[in-house]
Amino acid sequence: MSTKEKIAIIGSGNWGSAIARIIGFNAARHDSIETDVHMWVFEEQIDGKNLSEIINETHENVKYLKGVKLPTNVIAEPDLAKAVTGATLLVFVMPHQFLPRTVPNMKNMYAPNARGISLIKGIEFEHSKPMLISELISKTMNGMDISVLMGANVANEVALDQFCESTVGTYVPANGEVWKKVFDWETFRVSVVNDVPGVELCGALKNVVAIGAGFCDGLEFGGNTKAAIIRIGLEEMMRFVEHFYEKVNPGTFFESCGVADLITTCFGGRNRKCAEIFAKSKGAKPWDEIEKEQLDGQKLQGTITAKDVMTCLKAADVVGKFPLFAKIYMISFEGEPVEDIVKFADVIAKH
Amino acid sequence: MSTKEKIAIIGSGNWGSAIARIIGFNAARHDSIETDVHMWVFEEQIDGKNLSEIINETHENVKYLKGVKLPTNVIAEPDLAKAVTGATLLVFVMPHQFLPRTVPNMKNMYAPNARGISLIKGIEFEHSKPMLISELISKTMNGMDISVLMGANVANEVALDQFCESTVGTYVPANGEVWKKVFDWETFRVSVVNDVPGVELCGALKNVVAIGAGFCDGLEFGGNTKAAIIRIGLEEMMRFVEHFYEKVNPGTFFESCGVADLITTCFGGRNRKCAEIFAKSKGAKPWDEIEKEQLDGQKLQGTITAKDVMTCLKAADVVGKFPLFAKIYMISFEGEPVEDIVKFADVIAKH
Repeated sequence: MSTKEKIAIIGSGNWGSAIARIIGFNAARHDSIETDVHMWVFEEQIDGKNLSEIINETHENVKYLKGVKLPTNVIAEPDLAKAVTGATLLVFVMPHQFLPRTVPNMKNMYAPNARGISLIKGIEFEHSKPMLISELISKTMNGMDISVLMGANVANEVALDQFCESTVGTYVPANGEVWKKVFDWETFRVSVVNDVPGVELCGALKNVVAIGAGFCDGLEFGGNTKAAIIRIGLEEMMRFVEHFYEKVNPGTFFESCGVADLITTCFGGRNRKCAEIFAKSKGAKPWDEIEKEQLDGQKLQGTITAKDVMTCLKAADVVGKFPLFAKIYMISFEGEPVEDIVKFADVIAKH
Repeated sequence: MSTKEKIAIIGSGNWGSAIARIIGFNAARHDSIETDVHMWVFEEQIDGKNLSEIINETHENVKYLKGVKLPTNVIAEPDLAKAVTGATLLVFVMPHQFLPRTVPNMKNMYAPNARGISLIKGIEFEHSKPMLISELISKTMNGMDISVLMGANVANEVALDQFCESTVGTYVPANGEVWKKVFDWETFRVSVVNDVPGVELCGALKNVVAIGAGFCDGLEFGGNTKAAIIRIGLEEMMRFVEHFYEKVNPGTFFESCGVADLITTCFGGRNRKCAEIFAKSKGAKPWDEIEKEQLDGQKLQGTITAKDVMTCLKAADVVGKFPLFAKIYMISFEGEPVEDIVKFADVIAKH
């Protein structure tokens, strides 16, 4: 039996395909990893042909990452149980809502020593407390060790080989080193920190801060003010991790998952954009109308998370320690004037 | 004799006038500070009239901060010795090149227990080592305790009461608290850290990083890449402080002087702009030509500092630990292709 690591990628959307390209390169060059990488494809018909067959013939995911060639050792597989058979490394990169109905289809075919990593940006809430996607996956996978990979790494730019960085957060340093081998590439630099909640929460909470940054843009505030909002947001992200999880590791927030991803999200991205439109309408334009126009009806992550975060803060009675998060919520959902984004005194005093 | 603190502002340019407005408000509202604030004005003639007289009559610095009213308790004084007489708090906010010829004119008229603060962003170099402006001032002022105030606080936005933040760095916590009283205002929030080199070097080194950010813009790199460059820049700023001064206080870099000022400088500002033009010309357009066109012949801070920093790094034999700073220098002055801004391997290998 091979002692090599065997990788299965669970998901093949835009981000899944972009990262499959990098994973394919690394599987081919590292002796400790089997060259063939199986990528589970949720089967769809494209002009009457199976997407998985198209990918295996043309080495291109014509539906989700058009125009980018995947390495030939990335093999599309529509049968999930087959895709994960014997795999020691499971890369989760799919909408997390699909997890419960996906996991049973693996039929425990992966290796007994398998470890996982979540590339899913988001957060769940249960009983007014945050619940990490990595925790959810681990629970569903009988306690499997789940690391996370986050960072300023928009799929399309990664696919075009534009230089970027990512952060792996792990509980088990040895697993972190394995994941580094899987992902680290000349144009995709990976650092490892022993901090899962910090890394993962950065990926979720940055979207809330981006709403605040978008308000600044909509109000045509100058660079000082926007930078202050981003900085205060970073501080509240740290405070949130500290309150709900663990003593903060400041180093995590200096990594790509922290300050870098926050910067890209606050200067580009849909959350910033939609919040700018909301602010320009002085809060009169409803969010669902903005989402319809800008996102084809998809839901904005930042506002959903702002709402859930507020529920947590209220339940834990710590709203006063998070005046920016609170303000973003109050402006977004309680009719508070958008200009009040920089007025924290009342929140702090009231709580 | 009064036991109140007495403030003198040494300088009245754009930044000096903007901050004089805030200082004036605080001097008026705090009982522990004398209401009248003297601001030394380098006398100039405006339409045949003394600038200091115009300021005292109209409460407006018509030359350097047009259209903004100063509080009436800020009193312009062209005689430096008079301006500082009895002062216990000296606010240095002038081009530091003028210090040597300015200090003797104070004729030691300030109070024996006087403390100073430097608002001057910049850095000097002596014998291939960095020399803080606060150190320079302290030496010139017989060892006076000098704190610093830095942050994302562009003068014109501060003058218009746009919300922003600043960071006071101090060696003496009690003095830090006094300076907080002098500067903290509803729209100008001040935090204090016990770290002078960290705070001050942020204000100087950010300009080097902004050159790298401008290169990214000129090359039309995406948001991932630019965020990575800014993040690596922040890391090298910390490493520089650690190497040349002291154990790094990560907290300093989360303050306004760190991440916030870096963000504004990398998205706005002249260093970014000129570097973008340089990159668009593929490095063919000489810096002095860019400076002539964009800055009316004024010198760019970022490129000067990049050169001095490189001299320090070479002298200390640590170039390999600062691949971004090195790349920015090599692209700016040694004809290295601008695209190489994201290729660090050779610098690390060579040193």
